[in-house]
Amino acid sequence: MEHTTEYKDLVNQNQDFLPGISIDCVIFGFHENQLKVLLIKFGNTQIYSLPGGFIYKEESLDEAANRILDHRTGIEDTYLEQFYIFGDPKRVNPEEHRWIMQKNGIDLPSDHFLFNRHITVGYYALVDFTKIQPHSYLNHEESGWFDIYDLPETIAFDHRDILTKALNSLRLLLDHKLAVFNLMPETFTMGELQSLYETILNKKLLRANFQRKMLSLGILERLDKKWGGGAHKAPYLYRFDSQKAEANKFSNQFEE
Amino acid sequence: MEHTTEYKDLVNQNQDFLPGISIDCVIFGFHENQLKVLLIKFGNTQIYSLPGGFIYKEESLDEAANRILDHRTGIEDTYLEQFYIFGDPKRVNPEEHRWIMQKNGIDLPSDHFLFNRHITVGYYALVDFTKIQPHSYLNHEESGWFDIYDLPETIAFDHRDILTKALNSLRLLLDHKLAVFNLMPETFTMGELQSLYETILNKKLLRANFQRKMLSLGILERLDKKWGGGAHKAPYLYRFDSQKAEANKFSNQFEE
Repeated sequence: MEHTTEYKDLVNQNQDFLPGISIDCVIFGFHENQLKVLLIKFGNTQIYSLPGGFIYKEESLDEAANRILDHRTGIEDTYLEQFYIFGDPKRVNPEEHRWIMQKNGIDLPSDHFLFNRHITVGYYALVDFTKIQPHSYLNHEESGWFDIYDLPETIAFDHRDILTKALNSLRLLLDHKLAVFNLMPETFTMGELQSLYETILNKKLLRANFQRKMLSLGILERLDKKWGGGAHKAPYLYRFDSQKAEANKFSNQFEE
Repeated sequence: MEHTTEYKDLVNQNQDFLPGISIDCVIFGFHENQLKVLLIKFGNTQIYSLPGGFIYKEESLDEAANRILDHRTGIEDTYLEQFYIFGDPKRVNPEEHRWIMQKNGIDLPSDHFLFNRHITVGYYALVDFTKIQPHSYLNHEESGWFDIYDLPETIAFDHRDILTKALNSLRLLLDHKLAVFNLMPETFTMGELQSLYETILNKKLLRANFQRKMLSLGILERLDKKWGGGAHKAPYLYRFDSQKAEANKFSNQFEE
């Protein structure tokens, strides 16, 4: 067990950490048709957790996330991206945490900063499984890859929830996200919708292409024509159809 | 000016706030072909900012975000979603902040917690512009809607960066996000790619549909056949083509 500066900082309640905030890293790899995540096991327990840690006061979040992942697992130069911040006041049971530390011969007072409420920033990375060779660190006796659908029974704190959220974020990467329709009124013309897209993208779009592509998504319901001066020139009104949108999500199209 | 409990907490360095963390809200509305954001102006200055505040120790992040937005602007029951956490150690200049407070007759000591480093969680909402009637609050003399492409000259702290990031997040909603290809090796068969999708989605997909839909995205380059026992049965290898992917992004397809 290597007692580094950071480890001493932790035990000595060093004031160089930013208070109230931590980082946890979900590392995804894909191997033999399994989506794997990297977990570490606390020494002298059967409890697994995500690689995580604290932020020095002069560090940016991204710097801290990379330092923590490197220190805990030896994984360097991986592109980590934040995916969610977990802010439930009860997300960590301080007694569970204290018990884990005690099992490793580290007896901290119950008012130690480690047991305060911490908001944690979830970072994730998608890595080439074959290039990663994790090592273990500090009070963790081993680290290893686990099938996301076959995780160890006991996972510390709210880390199972963090893993679930990370998986959901990964699934969203597969889909169109159509939340921009929340910006529109209940019904709208194609021109109004195009205007929304043009405004968000800050560029002009070709009218015919926009209409064709948008209709091809199969997420709009065409209604009556909008009343105007000359009926033959009135544009159709459309409504966003959330049921069609769900059915036409990219990840649902393979099952037709 | 209404001096509420929260306001007193702020001035009195009340320990009921979670240390080191704040929330800022970007409220998007769409009106007359403009993408608008809601900003508030600090009293006795020409400095605008996002509606923001601190988190009580017993609150979840989402609860705090909704309370802050309601208190600052009167906007209730809006679905706020976090989009990014801003963690640059230098994101706020404490002197700028202190000067703004002084301009409003609030003279805080320079070691007041308000001037410590705070990480801030960015929340955004897409709202129906016509239903929102913001009011002002505390040391803010007015609040109002601004065209995202025509913002006031002086925006406090890093709030211009936060607005930029929020706009970029909104643009991402328009696109497929194709980062999952980072999980694959350089070259792969269609079967291997399908397996990745099946694993992430945790369901079986139809082989013919998957291949057709995936090829229709126009983001894969077909290479030679993979060497196998019987050449006539060998599957093709594919490579992800990031240039094609960029050109075929949904938001770029309207310009063909």
